[in-house]
Amino acid sequence: MKKIGIREVAEEAQVSTATVSRVLNNRGYISKETRDKVQAAMRKLEYYPNDLARALYQKRTYTVGVIFPSNVHPFQAELIQDIEYLLSQKGYKMLLCNSLNNPQKEIDYLTMLRKNQVDGIIVGTHNKYVSGYQNSKLPIVAIDRDLGENTTTVACDNYAGGKMAVQLLIDRGCKQILDIRGDSSVKLPANDRSIAYLNLMKKNNLPKNVLEVPFVWSAAKKKETIENYLQKHPQIDGIFAGDDLLASLAIFYLEMHDKRVPEDVKVIGFDGAKQTLLYNPRLTTIRQPIGQIAQVATEKLINKINGKKETDCLDLPVSLYIGRTV
Amino acid sequence: MKKIGIREVAEEAQVSTATVSRVLNNRGYISKETRDKVQAAMRKLEYYPNDLARALYQKRTYTVGVIFPSNVHPFQAELIQDIEYLLSQKGYKMLLCNSLNNPQKEIDYLTMLRKNQVDGIIVGTHNKYVSGYQNSKLPIVAIDRDLGENTTTVACDNYAGGKMAVQLLIDRGCKQILDIRGDSSVKLPANDRSIAYLNLMKKNNLPKNVLEVPFVWSAAKKKETIENYLQKHPQIDGIFAGDDLLASLAIFYLEMHDKRVPEDVKVIGFDGAKQTLLYNPRLTTIRQPIGQIAQVATEKLINKINGKKETDCLDLPVSLYIGRTV
Repeated sequence: MKKIGIREVAEEAQVSTATVSRVLNNRGYISKETRDKVQAAMRKLEYYPNDLARALYQKRTYTVGVIFPSNVHPFQAELIQDIEYLLSQKGYKMLLCNSLNNPQKEIDYLTMLRKNQVDGIIVGTHNKYVSGYQNSKLPIVAIDRDLGENTTTVACDNYAGGKMAVQLLIDRGCKQILDIRGDSSVKLPANDRSIAYLNLMKKNNLPKNVLEVPFVWSAAKKKETIENYLQKHPQIDGIFAGDDLLASLAIFYLEMHDKRVPEDVKVIGFDGAKQTLLYNPRLTTIRQPIGQIAQVATEKLINKINGKKETDCLDLPVSLYIGRTV
Repeated sequence: MKKIGIREVAEEAQVSTATVSRVLNNRGYISKETRDKVQAAMRKLEYYPNDLARALYQKRTYTVGVIFPSNVHPFQAELIQDIEYLLSQKGYKMLLCNSLNNPQKEIDYLTMLRKNQVDGIIVGTHNKYVSGYQNSKLPIVAIDRDLGENTTTVACDNYAGGKMAVQLLIDRGCKQILDIRGDSSVKLPANDRSIAYLNLMKKNNLPKNVLEVPFVWSAAKKKETIENYLQKHPQIDGIFAGDDLLASLAIFYLEMHDKRVPEDVKVIGFDGAKQTLLYNPRLTTIRQPIGQIAQVATEKLINKINGKKETDCLDLPVSLYIGRTV
C-alpha cells in the first residue's frame, strides 16, 4: 500500500505543501476555507502526521521494548498489561517481545529493539547467559532479575514473602514442608524466598525439603517433576510453591491421589495475579504488588530515558491472600 | 541519551561516513583492517543500523498494531502470543495495545498506530461504536469480530462449537440448560453459538434459559450477574458458558452453595486456552483452535499488506475437551 504524504494531501486540496504543513502545525494565518479543504483532503486520503519522521528527527521514538518470557503467564501478563497502560498514559508505545524462554530469541529481540531505536527496555526474562544488557548505554529496567551494571532492578520484598508463606505453614502445624523453588544458579531476587524458607526451617528445627523447578521448563516437565517428587515423598504435609502454577499442579496431583487439601497437605503459592484468583479463588497465595511493580519499573525507565540516575527497588510490599488451601 | 549515528562511528574509526556505509551494506571493496576498525567502533559506541530511517524511506515499517481488550484474558493472551511469534518469524514486530474495553482508548490507539505508519492492524476488541475501521485503506484483520467493509474476519466455527457443547449437555440428561452468552447487540461471529443453542432447545422441546453477560463488563459485575441468576433459578441443571471465565464463576458459586458439579449441575465452557486448562484441568470446554486462528489472521494480514485481496474465514475447527464438569 502506498503511504500518503503531505504532497498527496496538498495535491488533493489544491494547495501548496507549505500550506498543508501550516495547517498541521497550526502555524501562521490560514483561512477557514483553506483549513477545511486541507482537513477534508486528509480525511479522504486517510492521512496521518508521520510520527516516524518526527522520531527520526528528534532522536526519540517514544517506543519502549518489553521483553518477557510470555504474555500468557498470569503474573507476567498482568505486569505487561499494567506497563502498557502506564506507558500509554505517558505517550509511549510498547513493542512486546515474548522470548519464550529461548536465549537466542531474546538476543535477536534485543538487537531488533536497538535497530528500531527504542528509547528504553523493560525486561523480565529468566534466561541464563544472555549478554548485551550489562553496561548498556540504552536505559534498561529489569523486573525480578539482576542483569548487572547500569541496569536497574525492581522486585517485591521476596524475603518477606517467603517468610510470610512458610510461617503460615508452620503455624498451621506442618512438619515436613517442601520448598518448590526456581533455578538456584540464576541470579534472581526471588532466591531470597528460599533463604527465608531455610532460615525458618533451621530456627524451628524442621527438616529441609527442596525441589528445584526452573522457571524456563515446559509446563509438562514441571508437572512431571512435581508429581515424581510427591509420589516419592508421601510425608510432605506442607508446600511452599515458587509460583501459583507450581502450587496448582501440586494441588491437582494431590487431589487426584486422594490427599485432601488443606486437611492432609497445605499448599501456598506465590504471585496472586488477578486472573489466577478469578479462576482459582480457593488458592492461598502470597500476592505480589503487580501494579506497584509496573509503576515503579515504568517510572524508573522514563527517568533513565530523561537522563536521570536510578537505583534498584527490591522491597515492594507483598500481602497474604487467604484462600482455602492452607 | 544521544543516539549514535554513522557520523559518530566514522569519527571513532577515523574513516569517512561513506566507508561506514559500505561496511554496513557490504558493498564495494573494503580492506579487512578497515572493516575490523569500523565494526570495533560500532561495538564500542553500541551503534545499530537505523531501521526507522529505512522504514521511512521504504514506506514500510514491518510493524503491526495489535489491539485487544486485554493481554491477560487467557484466550486473548494466547492469541496475542501466537500472533507475536508468527509475526516475528516473518520479520515483523508488534505494537501491543490493550483497549481495556474502553472505546475512546481504542480510537486513540487506532490514530496512534496510523501516525506510526504500521503496515497493518489485527484487532480483537468487543467495543461497540468504534468507527475508523470500515473502508480503511490500511490492511485490517479482525478476530471474532465483524468490522465491516474491507476488513477481513477470522473466527472458529462457532455454530459447530455451540452445537457440540449443548448436545453434550442434552446427552448427559440436562433438562434446564442455561446459555450464558455475550452482548447480542454486538455483531460477533460468537453469536452463532447461541443460535445453535436455540435450535437445539427447539428441536428437543426444551425450555430456553438465556442470560446475557457482555464481554466488556468487569469480572465483578459478571460474577454478581451469574450468582443472582443462579440463585433465582435453582432448577438449572446444565450451563453452556460463553467463555471459561463465566464457566469458572458459575462452578465456584455452585460449589460454594452445596451444588455438586457435575452431579447436580453440569457446566461446559468455551475457549480452552492452554493456560486455563493448566490451572483448571477439571473444566470441560470447547477448545478454540487458537494457534490456527493466529496463523490464518497473520497470513491474511501479511497478504493484505502485500496487496492481495483476502476473504473471511469463519470455520476453523473446534474440539471438545473432556474434563470433569459435565
